Amino acid sequence: MSSDIEIASQATLRPIADIAASVGLTVEDIIPYGHYAAKVPLAHITSDAEAPAGRLVLVTAMSPTPAGEGKTTTSIGLADAINQVARADGWEPVPGKQPAVLALREPSLGPVFGMKGGAAGGGWAQVLPMEDINLHFTGDFAAIALANNLACTMLDNHLHFGNELDIDPRRISIRRVMDLNDRALRQTAIGLGGYNGGIPREDSFDIVVASEVMAIFCLATSLSDLKRRIGRIVVAQTRAKEPVTVDDLGAAGAMTALLRTALQPNLVQTIEHTPAFVHGGPFANIAHGCNSVLATTAALRFGQWAVTEAGFGADLGAEKFLDIKCRAAGLRPDVAVVVTTVRALKYHGGVARADLETEDVAAVEAGLPNVLRHLENLQEVYGIPAVVSINRFPSDTDAEVARVIGMLAEHGVTAVEANHWAHGGAGALDLARAVVAAGERGGDQPGAARYCYELGMSLEAKIEAVATRIYRASGVDIPPKVQRKLDQFRDEGYGELPVCIAKTQYSFSNDPAALGAPTGHRLQVRDVRLSAGAGFVVVICGDIMTMPGLPRRPAALQIDVDEAGNIIGLF
Amino acid sequence: MSSDIEIASQATLRPIADIAASVGLTVEDIIPYGHYAAKVPLAHITSDAEAPAGRLVLVTAMSPTPAGEGKTTTSIGLADAINQVARADGWEPVPGKQPAVLALREPSLGPVFGMKGGAAGGGWAQVLPMEDINLHFTGDFAAIALANNLACTMLDNHLHFGNELDIDPRRISIRRVMDLNDRALRQTAIGLGGYNGGIPREDSFDIVVASEVMAIFCLATSLSDLKRRIGRIVVAQTRAKEPVTVDDLGAAGAMTALLRTALQPNLVQTIEHTPAFVHGGPFANIAHGCNSVLATTAALRFGQWAVTEAGFGADLGAEKFLDIKCRAAGLRPDVAVVVTTVRALKYHGGVARADLETEDVAAVEAGLPNVLRHLENLQEVYGIPAVVSINRFPSDTDAEVARVIGMLAEHGVTAVEANHWAHGGAGALDLARAVVAAGERGGDQPGAARYCYELGMSLEAKIEAVATRIYRASGVDIPPKVQRKLDQFRDEGYGELPVCIAKTQYSFSNDPAALGAPTGHRLQVRDVRLSAGAGFVVVICGDIMTMPGLPRRPAALQIDVDEAGNIIGLF
Repeated sequence: MSSDIEIASQATLRPIADIAASVGLTVEDIIPYGHYAAKVPLAHITSDAEAPAGRLVLVTAMSPTPAGEGKTTTSIGLADAINQVARADGWEPVPGKQPAVLALREPSLGPVFGMKGGAAGGGWAQVLPMEDINLHFTGDFAAIALANNLACTMLDNHLHFGNELDIDPRRISIRRVMDLNDRALRQTAIGLGGYNGGIPREDSFDIVVASEVMAIFCLATSLSDLKRRIGRIVVAQTRAKEPVTVDDLGAAGAMTALLRTALQPNLVQTIEHTPAFVHGGPFANIAHGCNSVLATTAALRFGQWAVTEAGFGADLGAEKFLDIKCRAAGLRPDVAVVVTTVRALKYHGGVARADLETEDVAAVEAGLPNVLRHLENLQEVYGIPAVVSINRFPSDTDAEVARVIGMLAEHGVTAVEANHWAHGGAGALDLARAVVAAGERGGDQPGAARYCYELGMSLEAKIEAVATRIYRASGVDIPPKVQRKLDQFRDEGYGELPVCIAKTQYSFSNDPAALGAPTGHRLQVRDVRLSAGAGFVVVICGDIMTMPGLPRRPAALQIDVDEAGNIIGLF
Repeated sequence: MSSDIEIASQATLRPIADIAASVGLTVEDIIPYGHYAAKVPLAHITSDAEAPAGRLVLVTAMSPTPAGEGKTTTSIGLADAINQVARADGWEPVPGKQPAVLALREPSLGPVFGMKGGAAGGGWAQVLPMEDINLHFTGDFAAIALANNLACTMLDNHLHFGNELDIDPRRISIRRVMDLNDRALRQTAIGLGGYNGGIPREDSFDIVVASEVMAIFCLATSLSDLKRRIGRIVVAQTRAKEPVTVDDLGAAGAMTALLRTALQPNLVQTIEHTPAFVHGGPFANIAHGCNSVLATTAALRFGQWAVTEAGFGADLGAEKFLDIKCRAAGLRPDVAVVVTTVRALKYHGGVARADLETEDVAAVEAGLPNVLRHLENLQEVYGIPAVVSINRFPSDTDAEVARVIGMLAEHGVTAVEANHWAHGGAGALDLARAVVAAGERGGDQPGAARYCYELGMSLEAKIEAVATRIYRASGVDIPPKVQRKLDQFRDEGYGELPVCIAKTQYSFSNDPAALGAPTGHRLQVRDVRLSAGAGFVVVICGDIMTMPGLPRRPAALQIDVDEAGNIIGLF
């Protein structure tokens, strides 16, 4: 079996100018970054297009195992498959559009050098050039890190030169970031060494994808919207507990200047030459976990079908995609794909992680309620039709796969086996046809936005709505200290923001060991944080790690450059 | 008077493909980064060219005032002027070459957001697009920062997981970096917070240009040379005081992978469309202060004349250019330009900084010994012919400029007034003709390498050679503690490395207040550090700041993006 980078190195890439031309963009329209990637200026994305916007496909998943169930590969395989179906079935061409265009997240260097490896798909469902996309790419994350850290150094400089804003050094909420897993920076003391080191205080570094600047980057609809949102970031409180913002520091202009180029979505291609916008990638717990709004907008502008993904399982990823991103950007998916695996079903059916490759049809059956609940949520809470994609792994048996399809059919759900990892788009043709059929039937009337909660509700009621309607908790526990912070957010005028709940992705509850479809649990809120620039209140339930550590044997040990200058050891 | 960015915004850029074509490169040969910048693959630079390598012009300076004397603008104006002269005088075209090509350093974001502003030239002598070059550009510095910081997190991870190499946490020499002025990171404590934070220790962050990875990046002649040098970086000592290297951590491959794209020199253009390779930019005190060897090699490959610059005054910049960079890369300049200003002459003649704009011919005369000594050093120590360029400022009077030219003529030195800041290449035509004439006459026989010291000398003798021959000190004082470190370096096999002396740029001595041409002073060595990957021993004399701070009113406060998406406020 070939590794991802071996498969990628066998692929023949088309010049990015050709990919751009396939969606009606000239070489002058795009900003090339090498011969196989380009940034697309916002004017071409947000302009009133003659062609109508495409239909939006959201790829989400059941509650995952720690290995992940393959949302990115499914997204890629599905888009490639739609393009194959369009050719096979002779779809009428739409000028300036491809049948399917992708919008995906950019990989962070943390996992690339840490445990997980690359994040540009896998097998025959990859976006290319995978080694560039995984390693620094067009520099977007570095620009985001610099913008964030510029605010931090301007804040500490303000403290050093007299602290005119009367910032309380014990109440600084913005943290420095780095796009690496760096355990030793989780808790630090800075400003040491006497006068020349500035004002001593505690600081914590986050990984760049956990920063509010990243969340803002992914929600901004224009450069001026980006600047406005950046200016609103609350970086600290005064000694009188008044919020201090980036605008108070005077840093929004320079931060936006750093991000001006980065904000333009990156265009690349799949192995099968499907156009893919790979842009932005915030955490899916303390942020909303989706690629940039501008990338999704671009995919809708240039695709008859725009395929995009959300983070983690549907309880976290799809909920935030819908209640935060779609609401902010005026988007609405026409159909959702729930990625399901035999492995994850067995896991939720009670099988230990070490035994997931052993056939166990009964366990598959036992895990089904997890998928069914995610489907119910999408269809009944949000009114979005959903199709199940069974992402086939080599160890899955035909009997297991057949049982999943059969059981879901009993519940009126279309479930399709997908083999894009092994066969590219050709392995996902059935999925493509099922998705197109469901998406064309549609769910709600167009424009009938249905969310889990309305913004006018109180922050507490919004948390309760997600907890009871999506997680099926019996209620929410908010400690008095946290309640006071919620009261303060309301008093400061942030009560109308949506909520962004950070909890484990392994369970509907906030206990990662409560697998399947638990009920009767209570959502324990540990803390709340304001992301005023991104425009949500983060609700922290459980332990959320915002700076990962490297494992004992990090993936970086295997990554190298060979004599010919090729990257090797990247998975 | 227009600001730099206003002048830049009025310029008409040519597509980078046209600039590449002007030196015989096709659009397929280059790697575009937008329409006005490209990376040039090493294969095109280091291949055996049919055309012979060009002649090398080193632009250096007298001991500067804190404002700087204009080496970068002089380099740009000179290259533009040579191209104008070639057209005016009908030079015979050489296939695949322009008459003049530039090699310059990349700006760091520290000064851009701090005190100094942009560093892409100024007035009508700029490289473009200046706002991109100044802000993140092709991401090289971000990649260098990530590569450096990857070694740091792998080191701390090694400590966390049992410290098999027996690293002494009190003897870690590699530091994390950030490409910002961030005073609060000068002295930090990391690894706090108990088990999950790793092993507590002190750390200091440097600005990225002060890192050894940056110095290596600028001395590497190929990707494999880069990897070899990175692997040799000594990151720490064991408890038995044995050196621990990047290779011991297993990080060299992944670090090189991060730098693979960045290592290719960036091609841009001046306002007058002269090709310019803008690439790398290490500190000029604890490192050698020059753009990358690969950029200089590219300028020689594609120019009949390659114009490049060194940092600070000639005592620091030219010395390191010659004794470190040229020796390592097999280069030798045909002619040096010593940038001189009436302001700096008056400063060395004893005029206070506040009075430098008042005419004072006597002070100009009194400052002359400073320039004469730099000229003597270049001509007599290194055997390189030198021309003085008087970088004209609006406040200079004709009488002052005439006196400089007259006095230097009495010493047999060609001095030419240059007005490139106000008039571009047209303002530096006399300089261009003088440089070409001197460079064609040449100094030594070609290939007759003459350095200030030979590598086989002891480290102490090498320090003494620079101190007495270049700085004209009476001797060197090395404290016993530092002598022990030098002994250790020798015992470890590093005795044959060149020395890189870090001292103030304001004086030949290590007392910044000793202006003019001091003698009889002694060079006080405070510390020595090993840069085994870069391949030199850093000799620290005086206070060297490797992480600048922001001023009270940082330049970042003025930088912004206007409604049309243009950068404003960048100087």
